[in-house]
Amino acid sequence: MSSLSVSPVAHVRGGRAAPEDDNWGGERAVILLEETFPQDALFGLGAFSHAEIVFQFHLAPDAKIETGARRPRGNPDWPLVGIFAQCGKNRPNRIGVTVCRIVSVSGREIAVEGLDAIDGTPVLDIKPVMREFLPRGDIRQPDWSRELMKDYW
Amino acid sequence: MSSLSVSPVAHVRGGRAAPEDDNWGGERAVILLEETFPQDALFGLGAFSHAEIVFQFHLAPDAKIETGARRPRGNPDWPLVGIFAQCGKNRPNRIGVTVCRIVSVSGREIAVEGLDAIDGTPVLDIKPVMREFLPRGDIRQPDWSRELMKDYW
Repeated sequence: MSSLSVSPVAHVRGGRAAPEDDNWGGERAVILLEETFPQDALFGLGAFSHAEIVFQFHLAPDAKIETGARRPRGNPDWPLVGIFAQCGKNRPNRIGVTVCRIVSVSGREIAVEGLDAIDGTPVLDIKPVMREFLPRGDIRQPDWSRELMKDYW
Repeated sequence: MSSLSVSPVAHVRGGRAAPEDDNWGGERAVILLEETFPQDALFGLGAFSHAEIVFQFHLAPDAKIETGARRPRGNPDWPLVGIFAQCGKNRPNRIGVTVCRIVSVSGREIAVEGLDAIDGTPVLDIKPVMREFLPRGDIRQPDWSRELMKDYW
């Protein structure tokens, strides 16, 4: 496995100071673009209602990274599932991807709502949400995942 | 900007040999998990209809990476928009995120349909698609993005 190098393009400022499992829906934060980028890198983003943020769970410790299977949140009521069949943060490469609402875009700042990333999180990419990239066809998912997400937002 | 190291967890095998703009919808390929992971890293993924694949546009050359604004696909009919307000591959960190349909999961292989990544693409993460992570609230997007996506799938 050759490694690839990526650099933060922005950081999350504000919002929660520590990770928690649930109730992220009303959380507000700002994504602050790195100064190495010109401001026009965000030009036109405000015409979209939502952005997809690719970030790194930077506090997930090496020792907790799961490479095989585990019960989501360690809950004995849920089945053993592979790390690539769940969205937990203790995953190889520590990459998170979340769609949040864009509140406003101004200068180097994107104000967002419903981003499940804590203060200081390195952001690896910012993409506009287009309907055409949503899942095509019916979505099927197991019961445990619906229970897990019940109070997430 | 400190750089972060990530490693491919899998590679795309099959599908297109070179990137093209449109008609990805019926494309089939296999995502082959690296041998450093136990097979049970994929356990339970087959209970989901769709997966979100985080990958790297590994052929995008350094010299073409856009850090400011440009017209999508160089089309003079579309407005100048920032690289973080479009999904083009010549972007900082070269990260792509696409939801595709899971055809089957077997051993270290995930057969997928509708993944817009070419043969040999390094995969950085694989996540199951849960309805709860789709955009919450109405989606708004500019006209140019709808035109651009017209023949994408």
